[in-house]
Amino acid sequence: MLSKSQIKLIRSLGQKKYRSEHQLFVVEGAKAVAEFMRSGYELEHVFSVDHVFDISTDLYTPVSAPGLKKISFLKTPNKVLALFKIPKPKPINYSRLVVALDDLRDPGNLGTIIRLCDWFGVLDLICSRTTVDCYNPKVIQASMGSLSRVNISYCDLEKTVPLFNNSYGTYMNETSVYDIKLNKPAIVVFGNEARGISSSLEPLFKNKVSIPRYSAGIETESLNVANAAAIFLAEFRRGITEK
Amino acid sequence: MLSKSQIKLIRSLGQKKYRSEHQLFVVEGAKAVAEFMRSGYELEHVFSVDHVFDISTDLYTPVSAPGLKKISFLKTPNKVLALFKIPKPKPINYSRLVVALDDLRDPGNLGTIIRLCDWFGVLDLICSRTTVDCYNPKVIQASMGSLSRVNISYCDLEKTVPLFNNSYGTYMNETSVYDIKLNKPAIVVFGNEARGISSSLEPLFKNKVSIPRYSAGIETESLNVANAAAIFLAEFRRGITEK
Repeated sequence: MLSKSQIKLIRSLGQKKYRSEHQLFVVEGAKAVAEFMRSGYELEHVFSVDHVFDISTDLYTPVSAPGLKKISFLKTPNKVLALFKIPKPKPINYSRLVVALDDLRDPGNLGTIIRLCDWFGVLDLICSRTTVDCYNPKVIQASMGSLSRVNISYCDLEKTVPLFNNSYGTYMNETSVYDIKLNKPAIVVFGNEARGISSSLEPLFKNKVSIPRYSAGIETESLNVANAAAIFLAEFRRGITEK
Repeated sequence: MLSKSQIKLIRSLGQKKYRSEHQLFVVEGAKAVAEFMRSGYELEHVFSVDHVFDISTDLYTPVSAPGLKKISFLKTPNKVLALFKIPKPKPINYSRLVVALDDLRDPGNLGTIIRLCDWFGVLDLICSRTTVDCYNPKVIQASMGSLSRVNISYCDLEKTVPLFNNSYGTYMNETSVYDIKLNKPAIVVFGNEARGISSSLEPLFKNKVSIPRYSAGIETESLNVANAAAIFLAEFRRGITEK
């Protein structure tokens, strides 16, 4: 049976303040929960309509469908909700391709970019301290379990970008990504949905790059940041296969 | 002043049935409304907090901020809401690169793909009859005015795919898109978010292609369809610049 204090705790984890206080985050859906368990995240508790996991009964509370609805962050709750401990970020490996996000605000975009990092084998994702929290339930939902396989660190990008031999800032109307050699290891930075990359970062990049627009119209303003990330990462990885 | 019948009409346009009956759709935000006007869409009416457009007063109803809230489909209404007539689709140009969507259900994905078509100069987008309606307010919102520049037709893909000299179906684990020559004119088909492309279409493709996954993990199941479309379209257009 769900207790009132459990409901209160879980609902509070929708806010970053309480996630930091309790050092816990919420994962929903049996498949995503299993992926976090397999990736070595420390399980705090499972709330589930069926007893789907082979875990100690101390860690498991059966819930009814209406009970699950009370604690779920989804429109259509997904049978299983689990709490995991927020892990300490692992050290960043500066000798690989690393993606960085400057002031990204939309949880869906962050989740999609985490999924892209996972797809393209990017193991480190660095976020500016103003970027949406990766343990936000909407980010976890959009990342579809990929968060369990990507190491995410929140840092000052002004200090981090210069640590890489190669750095790429993504802008509008700069050198085409197809016309320059993309060297790894490198950091590639994507900016805020509306304002792009902070002006304080601009002098730090060794390269400013763009995805060329093929539209005849002048009104198509920009690609969605997750689509831009998809194209850049594909281009980086394309280079690797050609070698 | 907004009349009750106007409110009722506009709210009804959230549903495809009433959009078809009235042959009208809703655009919100001054910038997007201006783009539809410039693209030659027939304006039915503007509801606006300020009189922002130089249009006949017959076509304009001033509304208060609370009035706008009653008719808007946005969480944060955007000062201007306009009704446009649904245009007849123009004939499809089979001698260009055409994108087709089979049973796409998410309005955000359709809107993002319309924006990508606009960016990459794809002027024709073909949707299966089961694909979400492009005049759905959420699609228009996500497409950010790009819908005004892309010709969208709803067709039977079984009949349309064979009309192209080159056809590409996008799948998991087929030939890498980097390992085959992408010929234009062509049709490239993306499938449903969960189930991919319908099995009835599979024998019709001249090529089945995939985006290679670089992740070591086996659990990353798929790219989001809009990200897959971004990578494929970039690759098609990359080929064009190299010629």
